Amino acid sequence: MTAYEVIKKKRDKKELTKSEIDFIVNGAVSGEIKDYQVSAFLMAVYFNGMTERETLDFTLAIANSGDKVKLDGFNGIKADKHSTGGVGDKTSLIISPVIASLGVNVVKMSGRGLGHTGGTVDKLESIKGFNVELSYDEFLAVAKKTGLSIIGQTGTFAPADKVFYALRDVTATVDSIPLIASSIMGKKLIADDDVIVLDVKVGLGAFMQSIESARELAKVMVAIGKGANKKISAVITDMNSPLGNYVGNALEVYEAVKVLKGEVKNDLYDICKALSVEILTLSDYGDREECEKAFDLVINNGEAYKKFEEFVTAQGGDLSGILSGKYKGEKVCEITAQSSGYITMLNAEKVGLSALTLGAGRTKKEDSIDYLAGIILNKKLGDRVEKGEVIAKLYSSTSNGFDMACKIFNDGVQINSEKPPVDSKVIEYIR
Amino acid sequence: MTAYEVIKKKRDKKELTKSEIDFIVNGAVSGEIKDYQVSAFLMAVYFNGMTERETLDFTLAIANSGDKVKLDGFNGIKADKHSTGGVGDKTSLIISPVIASLGVNVVKMSGRGLGHTGGTVDKLESIKGFNVELSYDEFLAVAKKTGLSIIGQTGTFAPADKVFYALRDVTATVDSIPLIASSIMGKKLIADDDVIVLDVKVGLGAFMQSIESARELAKVMVAIGKGANKKISAVITDMNSPLGNYVGNALEVYEAVKVLKGEVKNDLYDICKALSVEILTLSDYGDREECEKAFDLVINNGEAYKKFEEFVTAQGGDLSGILSGKYKGEKVCEITAQSSGYITMLNAEKVGLSALTLGAGRTKKEDSIDYLAGIILNKKLGDRVEKGEVIAKLYSSTSNGFDMACKIFNDGVQINSEKPPVDSKVIEYIR
Repeated sequence: MTAYEVIKKKRDKKELTKSEIDFIVNGAVSGEIKDYQVSAFLMAVYFNGMTERETLDFTLAIANSGDKVKLDGFNGIKADKHSTGGVGDKTSLIISPVIASLGVNVVKMSGRGLGHTGGTVDKLESIKGFNVELSYDEFLAVAKKTGLSIIGQTGTFAPADKVFYALRDVTATVDSIPLIASSIMGKKLIADDDVIVLDVKVGLGAFMQSIESARELAKVMVAIGKGANKKISAVITDMNSPLGNYVGNALEVYEAVKVLKGEVKNDLYDICKALSVEILTLSDYGDREECEKAFDLVINNGEAYKKFEEFVTAQGGDLSGILSGKYKGEKVCEITAQSSGYITMLNAEKVGLSALTLGAGRTKKEDSIDYLAGIILNKKLGDRVEKGEVIAKLYSSTSNGFDMACKIFNDGVQINSEKPPVDSKVIEYIR
Repeated sequence: MTAYEVIKKKRDKKELTKSEIDFIVNGAVSGEIKDYQVSAFLMAVYFNGMTERETLDFTLAIANSGDKVKLDGFNGIKADKHSTGGVGDKTSLIISPVIASLGVNVVKMSGRGLGHTGGTVDKLESIKGFNVELSYDEFLAVAKKTGLSIIGQTGTFAPADKVFYALRDVTATVDSIPLIASSIMGKKLIADDDVIVLDVKVGLGAFMQSIESARELAKVMVAIGKGANKKISAVITDMNSPLGNYVGNALEVYEAVKVLKGEVKNDLYDICKALSVEILTLSDYGDREECEKAFDLVINNGEAYKKFEEFVTAQGGDLSGILSGKYKGEKVCEITAQSSGYITMLNAEKVGLSALTLGAGRTKKEDSIDYLAGIILNKKLGDRVEKGEVIAKLYSSTSNGFDMACKIFNDGVQINSEKPPVDSKVIEYIR
């Protein structure tokens, strides 16, 4: 078998065998297949796609290309939730303690943020003392004790995905459903979770811009998960405007705490409930109604927040700073309405880029983060505003970047005289 | 401008500008654009093609990527003939002296053979003393004196083509009409010839297997030539079976001499006449009838052969060995008919591979050649044979490879009871 033959076969839209796919994936990692052959292969996949069977084999080959996370000795179900990335998306901080408090284990490696979307690990690091770099043994020990541990990605997990992604990023082969799906699922299948629920974002601030492409991606990922014997479903959720009212790192932890304490019942609460209920039903916790009731119960009786505190403490974190108000920078700048009317656009990408400019995110991996930088939205999509009224407040530890951040934010705002329809952000389930 | 943007634009089937094409070609040569981006670009071209305008710009960028051959100070027209490669194709050895004897200059850099097809430079080197490595000044001096000089490719001509070809060869992007056409024409347009005639081979022994693909390639190349202000046409010729009766290096020189002396009037003669008449008419030598008569005249009155001798002598060659019979190896093996009937297949590729196995060609660039190895065909496609009759004789300086060479040759022979139609090998003109 040669790389040439496999590239040609894919170029000619013939279905590759499992051994041909393993050959490409393993050769790409070992370097035996040159990067110029890998990139030609990826472009051929861009044009000709992959069958469901090929996509599954490709994903499994990616998952098997490096270390695996063995989760032995846990009582009960192990579940994972994955989001395709959005703005103000702090759902992991809420869902994880909710389901852990109901006996479903969350033993999660999570990513850092890049570009306009944030990462769970960065948010957790905004909590004073929180250690996302536990050793593997410590990680499992915390998870076994509390039912919940989240650390950053370490080790050589899915090195094939790193090779493919680096090439796709510079050869215009990112926008391919089978390549996106296999990249996401290849990383998910490293761990031996029983249940996976995917939050596929769609809209202005999401990677998927249309409901059709989001649906297709969700279907392909769910098929991969089922092929790998996981209990899996996907929820397509709206990311045209930010999720919740807080964007930033410590800012998002603060909002997560408010939701966990039952103090806020907004769009964020709704999506967290929908995703939690998916996980709980797949975990055989009960029927949908029972799972919905359980979600409300652990929020209302404080069990979810208690679990969150237990988890943070177990990983060395101290929430007192954030709880006492140290979750936003001292420099502030207000965004005011240019006219009276209804907010008809609050572009999530622009809000995310504005927060990035304030220092809340990274444009490249090496950048450092201002954990107190970010945005509080006083108004949301569909809200009535009067001219001059404050729509949002931008925070940062320094004043650098405020001008640009305000400009970017304002580019994403539209105000019109007619109230727009504001639908639920939970759009569709793919099971 | 970034390589990413240009790849994406081609991926999305948008027409590239001249500056975008120059950026890719020059970046590929300088190394500023990485080979994994170049190969992704080439795969995108494989799928989405190039417009006539893009193909012309791409070809010119290839031609301009290195040194150019300036042909100043010549009297009269400078013409070039190019063949896409075949078996037994010694037409350059015949056409060049014919048209030179009629006042059309041939100042030609030619290639070496690789795989089952031969190269003009190798054939010339089979003539004792013939120097294909003249300095550039010597080359021009010979051409100015005799109207004809042929040397091997030297200098850094079209380095972009070398980069692209090396990548295409290993990434399954060879079979793309715009890439094939730009590779051939990019090398042709290095020299400032006035007239170019293309011999586009089609059939079992040719790169193009179908008349449709040969026609498309011919049309694209003629359009490029016209776009570059050349007088150009293409002749599509049959390469299902070998051209002429001799395959090998010295063997083909010997057959060329026989045609030049007017001793043979076979398929080789016909194709040489058709191609020469194309060149002469494009060179304004006269109308078709006048050009046809001129061809016959210089063959019959010995002027063409005299010009060939003059050219060979000017480059240090001595034909006496070949003329006295030293054009074939001393080891010989006969291919005999397995049954009686008509030869319905004499597969040019198999004959070429058989000659390659005998030592007449190269499988890789570094291989050395046995100039006396090759094949004489006693019978041609459509000929009647009786069982046991000799179809061909295989020659070599050593006996190595005879078993394999005979097996390969026989794989390409079919004998049936019905006489097949044998059409002219000149199939179609693209002007």
